[in-house]
Amino acid sequence: MGGAGAGGAAFGDRLAERVLARESQVVLGLDPDPARLWPLAADAASPEIATDLDRAAAAVLAHCRAVLDAVAPAVVAVKPQLACFERLGAAGRAALGLVCEHARAAGLLVLADAKRGDIDVSATAYAQALLGSTPSPFGELPGLRADALTVSAYMGADTVESFRAVAAPAGAGLFALVRTSNPGAADLEDLELAGGGRVWEAVARLVARLGRPGPASGLSDVGAVVGATAPQHLARARELMPHAPFLLPGIGAQGGRVEDVAPAFAPGRAAALVTASRSNVHAHEASGAPDDPASAARAEAERLRAQAWALPTG
Amino acid sequence: MGGAGAGGAAFGDRLAERVLARESQVVLGLDPDPARLWPLAADAASPEIATDLDRAAAAVLAHCRAVLDAVAPAVVAVKPQLACFERLGAAGRAALGLVCEHARAAGLLVLADAKRGDIDVSATAYAQALLGSTPSPFGELPGLRADALTVSAYMGADTVESFRAVAAPAGAGLFALVRTSNPGAADLEDLELAGGGRVWEAVARLVARLGRPGPASGLSDVGAVVGATAPQHLARARELMPHAPFLLPGIGAQGGRVEDVAPAFAPGRAAALVTASRSNVHAHEASGAPDDPASAARAEAERLRAQAWALPTG
Repeated sequence: MGGAGAGGAAFGDRLAERVLARESQVVLGLDPDPARLWPLAADAASPEIATDLDRAAAAVLAHCRAVLDAVAPAVVAVKPQLACFERLGAAGRAALGLVCEHARAAGLLVLADAKRGDIDVSATAYAQALLGSTPSPFGELPGLRADALTVSAYMGADTVESFRAVAAPAGAGLFALVRTSNPGAADLEDLELAGGGRVWEAVARLVARLGRPGPASGLSDVGAVVGATAPQHLARARELMPHAPFLLPGIGAQGGRVEDVAPAFAPGRAAALVTASRSNVHAHEASGAPDDPASAARAEAERLRAQAWALPTG
Repeated sequence: MGGAGAGGAAFGDRLAERVLARESQVVLGLDPDPARLWPLAADAASPEIATDLDRAAAAVLAHCRAVLDAVAPAVVAVKPQLACFERLGAAGRAALGLVCEHARAAGLLVLADAKRGDIDVSATAYAQALLGSTPSPFGELPGLRADALTVSAYMGADTVESFRAVAAPAGAGLFALVRTSNPGAADLEDLELAGGGRVWEAVARLVARLGRPGPASGLSDVGAVVGATAPQHLARARELMPHAPFLLPGIGAQGGRVEDVAPAFAPGRAAALVTASRSNVHAHEASGAPDDPASAARAEAERLRAQAWALPTG
């Protein structure tokens, strides 16, 4: 259970089933900074471990496992930010694999936040690395086996289709960047097109065209990243992508508010996932109990879970 | 020598110096498929090596080193496709580091073909992973130390600036995706804007605005990926980005021709880099000497070098 491809169900149906089973639409973002880990993590970085990178990776792994142990009951999925593991080299990739295993063992889906985008053969290689596996004379080489992957659609439909050709048979999904949560999103995503609408709306149409709704849930296997910091776009995004699950980053540290994202949930409870990363993991720093990061993170995740679950759905 | 940050020079100047010293504008693309390696590579994958992934990574490493040994004299840089190493897990990341060391030892620049794009903190983490290093309580954690990184600018200027804030002090550069070489590039990149011009032209303006020309060469530290498969766009791209070095993929396997890319070189010989990957590495398969991949690859790279060097410059 929990692994990509389990039972052969489509990603949209797997997502819907898991949201209902766990009664949560909250995604725990993990973007560990080795300079800002929970206190216990330092103990894992024994001075006997050979290199600085190995020690940092051991500490990051201990931190992520502790965060997962604290927060997993309140969330449906974990979203590791791959950049944070890549800066720990090979040891970081090993730690990432163990973090994903830990999350699966806790019943969570794994959304690899990688924002990859490349031509056909390279998109295929990324999908093999992160969602599927790679055929080779040395055996079938296992990938990270994430349940979903964030991708960039800038290079067009053929690149997204290459990801999807590996993802779909594995029961995995994609979340394409549509209208992101950062200030610079206005620079290109919001430019107006001669044919009407904005650049991000053209991406939204592409997402709607490429995804296939799961037969049980009606939720597509190609979802959309739509920032919670610009909630005025959510109703329009939902109109353009009626079947796409939305991944909504930007709640918390980036300033987005749960109560503003209701339009994303119109098709049903599993139609949107609310992501919180730093606001969760660093909740103890703002709380009255700086020595108890686990309780503060769990409480923050539960607060978010209750808020999101209470939003009206169609 | 050859490492990022050597001498503190700006990337544009480092690139120009290296192109002139090596009399080559050719970039060797490495996108190793474990099912299609040079024959000698299999010997490196000793059955005594523990896992399939380790054996595949050992073979890929041997293959890449052999390709570099054969082709390095004809090229100025190597461009590893990170997807191909990521699908080999932690062993693949270790192999990637060794491939980059091998290339640096041969006097080549390393262009990490990663096409990353993310919000500020994550872009910073990617840049630390691939171009710089990461400060931590466990010591300064070394990254891949590539000389340049391909990035996606879809999310806007702030994301590119976050990459650049790490790249510039390291003497490293960026190549932003502007007008790519794949068929799907027409889907979004070519859409016409209400304010005039295409989406890719808006990205080109952003690239021109964000880069800083090196004082010696006039070449910027923010370059552009412009596919050689659509050469009709090159003159316009050069007009919009007078100082940007161009990375021109798509020659060879994707159908682009060297003789069509002359406009890219208008500002000078180092103003564009011609990339060839599969057409080089698999040249022996089309040649009369299938058992001598090294000679075939070297000959193909020399042919490309001579063709590009003969193009007129401004």
